[in-house]
Amino acid sequence: MSQSLLEQTIMGEVGVGTEAIPESIEPAAKSDRSWRGRLEQFMIGKALEAVGNPPLAVQLGDRMLTADNTKMMSSRVIIRDIRTLIKLALDPLFQFGEAYTEGRIEVKGDLAGVLSMILQAQSRSGGRRSLIERCASIGNYLDRNTLVGSRNNIHYHYDLGNDFYRLWLDDQLVYTCAYFPQRTDTLELAQQAKMELICRKLWLQPGETVVEAGCGWGALALYMAKNYGVRVHAFNISHEQIEYARQRARAEGIEDQVSFMEEDWREIHRPCDAFVSVGMLEHVGAVHYARLGEVIRRCLKAKGRGLIHTIGQTHPYKLNPWIERRIFPGAYPPTLGQIVGIFEPNDLAVLDVENLRLHYAMTLRHWVNRFEGSVDEVSKKFDEAFVRMWRLYLVGSMMAFECGSLHLFQVLFSQDTNNEIRWTRGEIYQTPLER
Amino acid sequence: MSQSLLEQTIMGEVGVGTEAIPESIEPAAKSDRSWRGRLEQFMIGKALEAVGNPPLAVQLGDRMLTADNTKMMSSRVIIRDIRTLIKLALDPLFQFGEAYTEGRIEVKGDLAGVLSMILQAQSRSGGRRSLIERCASIGNYLDRNTLVGSRNNIHYHYDLGNDFYRLWLDDQLVYTCAYFPQRTDTLELAQQAKMELICRKLWLQPGETVVEAGCGWGALALYMAKNYGVRVHAFNISHEQIEYARQRARAEGIEDQVSFMEEDWREIHRPCDAFVSVGMLEHVGAVHYARLGEVIRRCLKAKGRGLIHTIGQTHPYKLNPWIERRIFPGAYPPTLGQIVGIFEPNDLAVLDVENLRLHYAMTLRHWVNRFEGSVDEVSKKFDEAFVRMWRLYLVGSMMAFECGSLHLFQVLFSQDTNNEIRWTRGEIYQTPLER
Repeated sequence: MSQSLLEQTIMGEVGVGTEAIPESIEPAAKSDRSWRGRLEQFMIGKALEAVGNPPLAVQLGDRMLTADNTKMMSSRVIIRDIRTLIKLALDPLFQFGEAYTEGRIEVKGDLAGVLSMILQAQSRSGGRRSLIERCASIGNYLDRNTLVGSRNNIHYHYDLGNDFYRLWLDDQLVYTCAYFPQRTDTLELAQQAKMELICRKLWLQPGETVVEAGCGWGALALYMAKNYGVRVHAFNISHEQIEYARQRARAEGIEDQVSFMEEDWREIHRPCDAFVSVGMLEHVGAVHYARLGEVIRRCLKAKGRGLIHTIGQTHPYKLNPWIERRIFPGAYPPTLGQIVGIFEPNDLAVLDVENLRLHYAMTLRHWVNRFEGSVDEVSKKFDEAFVRMWRLYLVGSMMAFECGSLHLFQVLFSQDTNNEIRWTRGEIYQTPLER
Repeated sequence: MSQSLLEQTIMGEVGVGTEAIPESIEPAAKSDRSWRGRLEQFMIGKALEAVGNPPLAVQLGDRMLTADNTKMMSSRVIIRDIRTLIKLALDPLFQFGEAYTEGRIEVKGDLAGVLSMILQAQSRSGGRRSLIERCASIGNYLDRNTLVGSRNNIHYHYDLGNDFYRLWLDDQLVYTCAYFPQRTDTLELAQQAKMELICRKLWLQPGETVVEAGCGWGALALYMAKNYGVRVHAFNISHEQIEYARQRARAEGIEDQVSFMEEDWREIHRPCDAFVSVGMLEHVGAVHYARLGEVIRRCLKAKGRGLIHTIGQTHPYKLNPWIERRIFPGAYPPTLGQIVGIFEPNDLAVLDVENLRLHYAMTLRHWVNRFEGSVDEVSKKFDEAFVRMWRLYLVGSMMAFECGSLHLFQVLFSQDTNNEIRWTRGEIYQTPLER
């Protein structure tokens, strides 16, 4: 599907960006030569410069601050007050999200389109960082993912209550990129196809032992046990998730086949025939990759296979500071080069890499769609600011995958001397992935 | 296929390693406490230590220098004279090949088995390097792959005469890893399947422009033009290869569709929809990867796809010094991390990586087999030393892929913002690769 077609589909179905744009707009502020006008233009210029000067139409209250690009965009960004503009000028990457959450910034029209325009401009500008951002990056030297830090970070995002996630994830609560054999497949089918694809890549054999690092609500662990007859040891430090997963195992009568452990990946010592980790590496932190490599090396048997499924990027940019602080504390999407650096020093060879970027854009499209359909319930459960924060995060993520700012890598590996590996990939695709 | 099974098949069919071992062997030299005996044992100890102490049975003339491991190996290494042993002790990695070539070292029994044992021990020892080797590595700072250096290096290996390569390559002279849909496929079919696989990964469309960097004897360029209706600009600095390729294009009447240019990859400026390079990166040299990345970036259109097919390894070890000097001057097999480093800084995203290591072991098995079948002709054309040099190189390479010292990566990439990419891999495997 071409970019514009996918974009159209997303725009059409997602239910965001449908607010009408008011007819009357004040003339472009460029003509405002007053002291105050020039200061405002300077400040919005600073804010836009930090994201590569996207051609956005921006209003302060009811006055245009930029040229009126609404013909091009049919969307406008409205900054409610001068205080918000000042903050935005000083720390745009963080304050945009803050102000949007609090309703001090609004987007009239197409939120996804506005975010896409910002992401594209930012990517063209090569990730330039503001002075404040660069100062703030000193904080990078602090390790946010110690044993205790990781527990706090994971608790912050994943323990918001299973009921919340049930509102907009699939029926099995799989909170990672799905795999759509056909673009028109349902999210439920696509999440199942993703689990099946992983099992086939791992070439699981009945009776084998599998270690899963970061198991979410347990869907994959249960899937592997039920469909491949393997013994699974699944690790997670989210209390709510692990409790839910244990309940499911008991309910399905396979608690002797799947153990859910509320333990950190650093505590894994169990020898295994397959090591799998889906959506955890983003939370590990690059400073810990060498240690993760050692954990895999000590666990994976000579003939074992492993798979890491993770969000990634092409440049080692920091996560957007607002996302890092408000959504995923301690998170960082690695480059493929950094991912490979987990394996090679530990005599592990990469067998297969698949970039599923557009599948994550599609997955997020489904989540956004379902989230928007549940806004009233979310609003009741939390508040309007929470809804706006999550909308910005979900729509922004969708567009980040759509625009190529983020990627999704599935990396299959084994010891570099292991000859008991699939002869070709063809076998994986001989029968449909849908069970 | 398990390692031992593949090994058996290789041993059984390849025709190497069938010499009978003499019945009578002198008692193990460990008991020789003379001054001379102890010196000889010290020297062979040094030589074996450099390759991780493989449990080989080694003779000097008709006396055993090591414990008699022939029961374990049913093969022995025979060093003809003390001068060879001294050289071997001083610079084992280079002198083994030299002495083998000149017949001053012989392997009685199974050459592949002996090389496999050396490679495995070397890999376990983590690529320790002797003092001489470390001194010699200062030479690494010299760039062997300047425009002129590359021409000399390529001329050295690839301009030995097409008649020589015709003796043991497939009918289309494809001198890179083949792809065997079934293990039992012929080499001819497997080379064709490899070309088809590459075309499908690249998602070639009729009328598109393809740049091929390093085109060998032109088989892939001609295949793409004939079967996919694309316009191909193929580059190579081997004079004999490019002449041959041009003749084939003329003979097949498609010289207006395929241009063969005797030019270096650094001279490529042509915009293209697909960039492909099979078996060239090994000759580029790691210091030039950044420049190669820039060449790809300037050539590849926004919706273009690219594929690099290359030998690789898991650690950034130097090539064996004998291979580097006698077989492939200036060559170096990169790690996947280094390969990815070509793309990421240039806004190119990796879409797909496939490790075809065991397919290269199989390809080499076929080459070794055919080479051994043509030994008399090769001997007449060149001499006995040439035969021994090439046998050691081909059998050693076969075992290096078999043991996991070398890997083969096919890496598909595009600009990181390109959404016109295959939705899934499934399409590639829906119909047989054999045309």
